[in-house]
Amino acid sequence: MSEQANSDLMSKVVALCKRRGIIFQSSEIYGGINGFWDYGPNGAPLRRSIEQLWWRNMVEERDNVVGIDSTIICHPRVWHASGHVEQFADLMTDCLACKKRYRVDQLEDPGLCPSCGSREMTEPRQFNLMMKTYVGPVFDEEHAAYLRAESCQPIFVNFNTVRNASRQKIPFGIAQTGKAFRNEINPRFFTFRSREFMQMEMEFFCREEESMDWYEYWRAERWKFYTETLGIAEDKLRWNPHENLAHYAKAAVDIEYLFPFGWGEIEGIHHRGTYDMMRHAEYSGQEQDCKVFDQESRESYFPTVVETSCGLDRICLMMLCDGYHEDLAETRKEGKAEEERVLLRLPAAIAPVQVAVLPLSKKLAEPASELKNQLRRHFRTDYDEGGSIGRRYRRQDELGTPYCVTYDFDSLKDQAVTLRERDSMEQQRLPMAELPAWLLDKL
Amino acid sequence: MSEQANSDLMSKVVALCKRRGIIFQSSEIYGGINGFWDYGPNGAPLRRSIEQLWWRNMVEERDNVVGIDSTIICHPRVWHASGHVEQFADLMTDCLACKKRYRVDQLEDPGLCPSCGSREMTEPRQFNLMMKTYVGPVFDEEHAAYLRAESCQPIFVNFNTVRNASRQKIPFGIAQTGKAFRNEINPRFFTFRSREFMQMEMEFFCREEESMDWYEYWRAERWKFYTETLGIAEDKLRWNPHENLAHYAKAAVDIEYLFPFGWGEIEGIHHRGTYDMMRHAEYSGQEQDCKVFDQESRESYFPTVVETSCGLDRICLMMLCDGYHEDLAETRKEGKAEEERVLLRLPAAIAPVQVAVLPLSKKLAEPASELKNQLRRHFRTDYDEGGSIGRRYRRQDELGTPYCVTYDFDSLKDQAVTLRERDSMEQQRLPMAELPAWLLDKL
Repeated sequence: MSEQANSDLMSKVVALCKRRGIIFQSSEIYGGINGFWDYGPNGAPLRRSIEQLWWRNMVEERDNVVGIDSTIICHPRVWHASGHVEQFADLMTDCLACKKRYRVDQLEDPGLCPSCGSREMTEPRQFNLMMKTYVGPVFDEEHAAYLRAESCQPIFVNFNTVRNASRQKIPFGIAQTGKAFRNEINPRFFTFRSREFMQMEMEFFCREEESMDWYEYWRAERWKFYTETLGIAEDKLRWNPHENLAHYAKAAVDIEYLFPFGWGEIEGIHHRGTYDMMRHAEYSGQEQDCKVFDQESRESYFPTVVETSCGLDRICLMMLCDGYHEDLAETRKEGKAEEERVLLRLPAAIAPVQVAVLPLSKKLAEPASELKNQLRRHFRTDYDEGGSIGRRYRRQDELGTPYCVTYDFDSLKDQAVTLRERDSMEQQRLPMAELPAWLLDKL
Repeated sequence: MSEQANSDLMSKVVALCKRRGIIFQSSEIYGGINGFWDYGPNGAPLRRSIEQLWWRNMVEERDNVVGIDSTIICHPRVWHASGHVEQFADLMTDCLACKKRYRVDQLEDPGLCPSCGSREMTEPRQFNLMMKTYVGPVFDEEHAAYLRAESCQPIFVNFNTVRNASRQKIPFGIAQTGKAFRNEINPRFFTFRSREFMQMEMEFFCREEESMDWYEYWRAERWKFYTETLGIAEDKLRWNPHENLAHYAKAAVDIEYLFPFGWGEIEGIHHRGTYDMMRHAEYSGQEQDCKVFDQESRESYFPTVVETSCGLDRICLMMLCDGYHEDLAETRKEGKAEEERVLLRLPAAIAPVQVAVLPLSKKLAEPASELKNQLRRHFRTDYDEGGSIGRRYRRQDELGTPYCVTYDFDSLKDQAVTLRERDSMEQQRLPMAELPAWLLDKL
């Protein structure tokens, strides 16, 4: 696509998200707050179901991964041990003329303000990206704490408690999903780079000698999650190996998706060596809690960690960009045979509405509502009796509803309904009694 | 129960939670952080499934409630409008001798330190309970922001965007679940009063004249959630009407549970009048976004709000305390006919493990694992081949696992297994092919 077409696509996705209550700016009536996004009535189900797919795939369906849920605020020493307090910073420079602040690595010429052209820029300074708060009654450095910048650190800290309680033996993984916070200087690309976001991370603990095998295993598993579970075409995804590996890492690679604004990371798979466990042993002084005991050699050792880390909000954005399509649909509007329609081709498992019940007339509201109540036991179900049937199809199409069920006057007699599929727009007549089983099979 | 027995019960619940990885202190290897609790491999599924029950009951099964998910950090003006910046504070006093700090309303004699007996106490001062942070590159008052102290305010702020997007008309509700933060001076009673906790709130928008009917409706609905959905006995719950109503409120009542440490609030049902919507109209200047238009009178008006607000962590704690029991079970240990057992009588829908597969011998690992893989498609399934069968039952009992399935040597021949029920300890033989359907029916 051309640059213009891509920029148009992004604008259309953002507009659709606002209009249909999928995602919109936090605190809008107060002018918004930069880098914070709320999920509305059609966005919350989308994000929830992707999170549940991940949890099911990474935790519930596996023998060797357990799930936890730790606090956002941890002991501040956790972030000293992780290196975030000292090193999780961007080098920033200010323009003395127009007062704008920039990340040095994003400037083509760090001595020249890209906004006003002034050459009066301050010396680059470190700016820590962790959000700070205070816990307890006094606001001083002794009581400072941080909102977690990544959800993996509490996993390392809880390693031994979780291992004992779950009776797991190495190799095994610990997973969690939850909020993380980064005081990004330039939040951008809609929800792609925001200041409050959901992470889904899994830390896999193993022996050093088998760690590269596990690294390859998790690479393959995570690729399958995007291509098979979420149905993203392989040519919209790519591997991006890290060029500069941390000294402790044997390998690291990102999975990137081709967003309208370019390739963007959605997940990282990282070999982290024994670094994290050694650091927490050193900073906590509780070495035995960061090691495992080897029955054969009768010695304790630090486990090696392979991590899979993805951003839930970025995955949502990928699904919205990937699903957005425009095509032509039949219409009965005067003087036209076809009209443009917008549709979201979302997998049925994550669609905000999985099936919509549409009575052909308001006179059919009672039996149609009964059908809706029945379907709601199994599926996210919507009911809409407002406007022409074509208009109601358009509404469901742009929300990504895979199936619409039309209840007409014949339904009263033959106890059957017309089922319409979103992408093909094909319709078929189905007995109502068979509908739940038919849908369960598809969804 | 006696005070001693209650205190013992609480200690036993806390110890069980730690031992089995249900709930334990955050950042334990760093000495912990007061008022913050992590959910482990057996706690995360418990909390997740209670949250899902609530979401299903309050959002997915209703026509007139939609669900959203807003950010924890909002525009700071939200908390000025809500009154939290000015009024969400405790009156505190410090002992000049021992330096301890107290909430004035918790002291029997505010002029006398309960710890060291000194009479040198400071004048009471306001201490705000909101957690503060800074968003953006400069840490000054202009960039100050707060972690939300309750999850309902973003609902009020998003009212009109959500209403338009969801095509709802008054009366209807907006619900959300998520973290809230309060800088409590004295976190206590395990997870009951903590500094980071999960709220589940629903704000119902209606006309003033019908608001008391809705208030009564939601009282009844929420009572049913505890007694029917979660199975709490009515004599362990009570209504506690607020004595001092806010000036704008017509009614407010708490649902309390009889914890081992006494009656404690788990939910509040509040008539909030038009206060919140009027405040946000005033502070944002966007009055039209806080009102609805009445087609008949052709005028706009502020909707009246009825709120249901509960603490997910308190509900988890209630389920753990309520489910904790000790009784006697048969044993084959030498010289004994019976042994004490600990069990958690959790409803099957929220049990961390719903069914455990136990091969009678390690030689049966392969077919028993196959059965486990099959059950895992539908249920949270554990597999345990370590130790005597009695010991494995004890492990599952204290986790609240409703069903254990024993795979024995006969199973190879008759394709049947022994199913044991947690509470009655009754056993029955079931054909393996019938097991999933049998369990689906029970769970």
